[in-house]
Amino acid sequence: MKKFFLLVCLTASTAIFAQQKDYGIQAVNFTRVKLTDQFWLPRLKTNHAVTIPASFERCQNTGRVKNFEMAAARSGSFCTKFPFDDTDIYKTIEGASFSLALFPDKKLEAYMDTLIRKVGAAQEPDGYLYTSRTIDPAHPHAWSGKERWEKERDMSHELYNSGHLYEAAAAHYYATGKKSLLNIALKNADLVCSVFGPGKRHVAPGHEIVEMGLVKLYRITGKKEYLETAKDFIEARGHYDGYDTKNKDPFRNGSYWQDNKPVTGQDEAVGHAVRAGYLYSGVADVAALTGDREMVQAIDRIWENMVSKKFYVNGGVGAVPGGERFGDNYELPNATAYNETCAAIANVFWNHRMFLLHGDARYIDVLERSLYNGLLSGLGLDGKSFFYSNAMEVKNSYTHPALERSRAGWFECSCCPTNLVRLLPSVPGYMYAQEGDNVYVNLFASSTTEIIVHNKPVSIVQQNNYPWDGALTFVVSPQSADPFNLLLRIPGWAQDQVVPSDLYQFAGAASGKVAIRINGQPVDYTIQKGYAVLNRKWKNGDVVKVDLPMEVRTVTANEKLAADAGKVAVERGPLVYCAEAIDNGGRAANILLPASARYNQEVKPEMLNGVVVIRTVAPVVQVSSDKTSVATSARPVTLIPYYAWANRGEGEMTVWFPQQVQDIDIITRSNNTSTSQK
Amino acid sequence: MKKFFLLVCLTASTAIFAQQKDYGIQAVNFTRVKLTDQFWLPRLKTNHAVTIPASFERCQNTGRVKNFEMAAARSGSFCTKFPFDDTDIYKTIEGASFSLALFPDKKLEAYMDTLIRKVGAAQEPDGYLYTSRTIDPAHPHAWSGKERWEKERDMSHELYNSGHLYEAAAAHYYATGKKSLLNIALKNADLVCSVFGPGKRHVAPGHEIVEMGLVKLYRITGKKEYLETAKDFIEARGHYDGYDTKNKDPFRNGSYWQDNKPVTGQDEAVGHAVRAGYLYSGVADVAALTGDREMVQAIDRIWENMVSKKFYVNGGVGAVPGGERFGDNYELPNATAYNETCAAIANVFWNHRMFLLHGDARYIDVLERSLYNGLLSGLGLDGKSFFYSNAMEVKNSYTHPALERSRAGWFECSCCPTNLVRLLPSVPGYMYAQEGDNVYVNLFASSTTEIIVHNKPVSIVQQNNYPWDGALTFVVSPQSADPFNLLLRIPGWAQDQVVPSDLYQFAGAASGKVAIRINGQPVDYTIQKGYAVLNRKWKNGDVVKVDLPMEVRTVTANEKLAADAGKVAVERGPLVYCAEAIDNGGRAANILLPASARYNQEVKPEMLNGVVVIRTVAPVVQVSSDKTSVATSARPVTLIPYYAWANRGEGEMTVWFPQQVQDIDIITRSNNTSTSQK
Repeated sequence: MKKFFLLVCLTASTAIFAQQKDYGIQAVNFTRVKLTDQFWLPRLKTNHAVTIPASFERCQNTGRVKNFEMAAARSGSFCTKFPFDDTDIYKTIEGASFSLALFPDKKLEAYMDTLIRKVGAAQEPDGYLYTSRTIDPAHPHAWSGKERWEKERDMSHELYNSGHLYEAAAAHYYATGKKSLLNIALKNADLVCSVFGPGKRHVAPGHEIVEMGLVKLYRITGKKEYLETAKDFIEARGHYDGYDTKNKDPFRNGSYWQDNKPVTGQDEAVGHAVRAGYLYSGVADVAALTGDREMVQAIDRIWENMVSKKFYVNGGVGAVPGGERFGDNYELPNATAYNETCAAIANVFWNHRMFLLHGDARYIDVLERSLYNGLLSGLGLDGKSFFYSNAMEVKNSYTHPALERSRAGWFECSCCPTNLVRLLPSVPGYMYAQEGDNVYVNLFASSTTEIIVHNKPVSIVQQNNYPWDGALTFVVSPQSADPFNLLLRIPGWAQDQVVPSDLYQFAGAASGKVAIRINGQPVDYTIQKGYAVLNRKWKNGDVVKVDLPMEVRTVTANEKLAADAGKVAVERGPLVYCAEAIDNGGRAANILLPASARYNQEVKPEMLNGVVVIRTVAPVVQVSSDKTSVATSARPVTLIPYYAWANRGEGEMTVWFPQQVQDIDIITRSNNTSTSQK
Repeated sequence: MKKFFLLVCLTASTAIFAQQKDYGIQAVNFTRVKLTDQFWLPRLKTNHAVTIPASFERCQNTGRVKNFEMAAARSGSFCTKFPFDDTDIYKTIEGASFSLALFPDKKLEAYMDTLIRKVGAAQEPDGYLYTSRTIDPAHPHAWSGKERWEKERDMSHELYNSGHLYEAAAAHYYATGKKSLLNIALKNADLVCSVFGPGKRHVAPGHEIVEMGLVKLYRITGKKEYLETAKDFIEARGHYDGYDTKNKDPFRNGSYWQDNKPVTGQDEAVGHAVRAGYLYSGVADVAALTGDREMVQAIDRIWENMVSKKFYVNGGVGAVPGGERFGDNYELPNATAYNETCAAIANVFWNHRMFLLHGDARYIDVLERSLYNGLLSGLGLDGKSFFYSNAMEVKNSYTHPALERSRAGWFECSCCPTNLVRLLPSVPGYMYAQEGDNVYVNLFASSTTEIIVHNKPVSIVQQNNYPWDGALTFVVSPQSADPFNLLLRIPGWAQDQVVPSDLYQFAGAASGKVAIRINGQPVDYTIQKGYAVLNRKWKNGDVVKVDLPMEVRTVTANEKLAADAGKVAVERGPLVYCAEAIDNGGRAANILLPASARYNQEVKPEMLNGVVVIRTVAPVVQVSSDKTSVATSARPVTLIPYYAWANRGEGEMTVWFPQQVQDIDIITRSNNTSTSQK
């Protein structure tokens, strides 16, 4: 009980000192939302029971833990591949900390204590923490440079490691109240701020995240230096003169690192997509804390660019395998889509912060699309297999080396699995937010929460079967009679908007206005920034019912999006669907979905941990047994949620279906090679 | 009559001095073979009547002639794009000279005299001839370098221009007996040999041809320096130390210029395919004249590599658009096949010389395949439209920027049209060769010739309708009773060999031995190096009849040739066939030719200047009018000779036909863009 009380105290307010500024809207901390649903809760349990232990075990077995032990002993030889391998431990600790708040687990907590002691022992006396140098400073990793920080602008990832350490330390501190990891982080942050920052070394960190991490430490400690250094890291971008600005190679012109222009002059999502998402998140944090309008305008411009020209329908970003990066405008190929899982996670971070800045539901529309589709697809239903890249299509006839066709347990560069470990248990933290007497409901899942409005708690209980069912019930029980606004997000997809841009369009007739009833009575409501604003003197047990339209809809792409020309995607609610070979006679790339196709839904509780499948009858192209003829015949077609693909073996998978055949290419030999390891 | 006598004298022996060594086998000069046939003679007439005048006109209109006029005046500004634009004039003079020997034409001869005077006026007093520098030496072309020869190793083409000058001068001298152009060439060659050669400047010419050209001047003058310098140019290759030998970029490692290794250490056809073919031709010449065995071994190895790994079924070479160069082994894609017309011409030059070295018909098999297919396709039936690249397929659904879909009148880099101008009238020169009392018959076309055997003329009259008909008649009329060997080439394709390697195979049952009758009596004969050896005391009017099998045959590719996997090409006699959209319901890429297909032949005298077409009924894939289904139906399919494609408008064209459908790719939008200009 004592611990639970502590958790509540610590998380009720994220800051333990008086801040000048922060986001006007504050998220309701994940620890205050108790899931009771059938979609996320089982996944969080699997994360706790399977993914986190598997992740720690893999950190142990691959030598990542040994690196810390050797660094503590100042002897040995760095035994993994990348200098940022340290972060897999930090990220798993972060995820485990989130998870501890949901599922108390003494054994796990004790294991983490041991691990944190090892981390502390690996830290140098002045706070430096980077095992690949400390183990044997005379022979640092090739990416690290001979001197500390020497290669931070591009390859060393010293500040990247620090950033993940800070994120983990903050989560561990909030979840357990222990300062063991926090003190390690603060000691490192003090060193970082003594080296970098205003009037000191001025460098753009090669892989951003230290900015967000420093902000978290600033919120905990109030130490202004942390915020100033975070701001300085952002302001350092775009000032390195060693790039060839006219070169189109993003590694040569600096755009790979978002370092080609000062941040406040940027207007396009460029370069490595994870780095980009982390930068834009850090910029939002620093802008919120400093009131810097130019920074907000920059990420507003970049967001518009991303969502209107560089956003896959599955919520993925970062189209280009080479450099794991954003492509050009409208460069969203299916056959070679990279869509790194970490980039979808970064996109969730960024869009959440955009919402906190602007209070607009369109950012949550983007967040929800990434979360339920291109991010969740990164995780196998078994909780221990992962996609690094998230394909938009798999064809027997063509395999790009960058295209993973099945999930792997772990990767040499294993950023994505440990990023999922930490993201999943934080999902409840994205559901609610508050600004004074405005209470925002962003995501839908059966759950209970308590939010302090007018200094008194308001209980909100969600009852629904989202994302399968559009019937949402909210039971609102305030302890105060003062009126407040309940702002219910009406998803863009329920208002005929695929994404907040003209990149994709729903086909067919428009939906009507979403019906809302309070205590059985239909209510008229206005929509402000995507939210149904329900203002009233709420009474104990008021029941709000919302009916989101769950019919199947087809999506077409902007004509500038060449890869999807003449094709449709199929959606239902927040979910993007796909066809997998296993449900469709062994093929998926041979299915046409003409405009005349009619779709049925079917609840399949036993399938893929419970899904609604979509069924239709559509023309399917088939090759005769003697292989000298092809023909189209009307065949039953089954579509499953995209996030659930590749859980039943390898085979073709399609998200975008041809509506018509303009032409066909006859393929005389299949290319079935695949690469699933990074 | 006087002129004709002169021609005979000049061409009866190519050398007017006593040579030590040369090819053991000597080609019977083109001037001694009088075509009477329906295939080549009309083409040579069109070349004379249309192509040559059009070519001179274009040299005039594009400013190529003006460049010489400005060089003569030493004032103005080089007004075309490339420093090698001078060679289009040389090459047209060369072609016109060959043609004059066939079609006396005083007007043309007079025009050439005028032009040659302009060339002479543009020559600097010491012999230097390169208009782009001479016009304004202070402002040379960017490719030329500030000093003479400075950039000869890569960009300047100074020696390339010289090489074409020498080739033109030799042809003009042989054809007209005039020394006007020859003297210009000799003056330039003397300068070249004073700058380059043993003990002097040692450089590998960036675009080979000067080697062949110097050899021709050596044969005319006996001046040893010319041969020595040619040899030195060859030996200079592979010794430049400015290349990055480990770099895979052919421009960085020198292989683009065949300069990555010493010639005698080379064993693979690499780099720019025209340069390569000209080099290997020059090496053959120098090896024949010097007896250098190592050189012969090198081009033997390179030839084996080319014919077994880098030779298109249409006789084209140089697969890769970027660099107009040979690809890797088995890199013979259809969709992006470059197959420059000049490279096919260079391949004819080289293979003719390989035959002269080795007396083996397999080189003529390669020559014939290039000549009748991938070379001849470069020329439109109108005689004034040209392909620079020669596609292996044209699809509505896909167009590579390098793929020409229709012929153009002229190109900015117009090497191919003027190369065809000079190649065509030289075709009679590839028909016969002789070594003592061995008389080789290599190509088949109705014609008359007189060959000196045992110091007495032997008349050979060919009567046939080749390449349409396999019935060949040779009337042999010697003036001496001494026996001699008539070596009749039995083409590889008539002996179940597509090319002299395992790169392609004929499908189906083997053909029987080709029947030969003399004066109506079947003769038994042995085949030596691909020739039926007929030894007898020939009597006046002996009639030899040969029956080459002209059934339609399908060809499959070596399984290592990925682009053709599961496909067949169709051939008849020496001709490769293709399907064009215009004959096949508007499409060609939708035709399957399964193993069960049966082929008929049909003579079409009015079509495409007279061709035999191939007809079959085969599965054709078609898209329904509502574009939501595809189906295969048995449809009549018509194939035409590949060389004749693209003479009736643009559309799909296919050489390699799928036999079976492994899979299909549904294409939702056509890509109909094309580029037909270089």
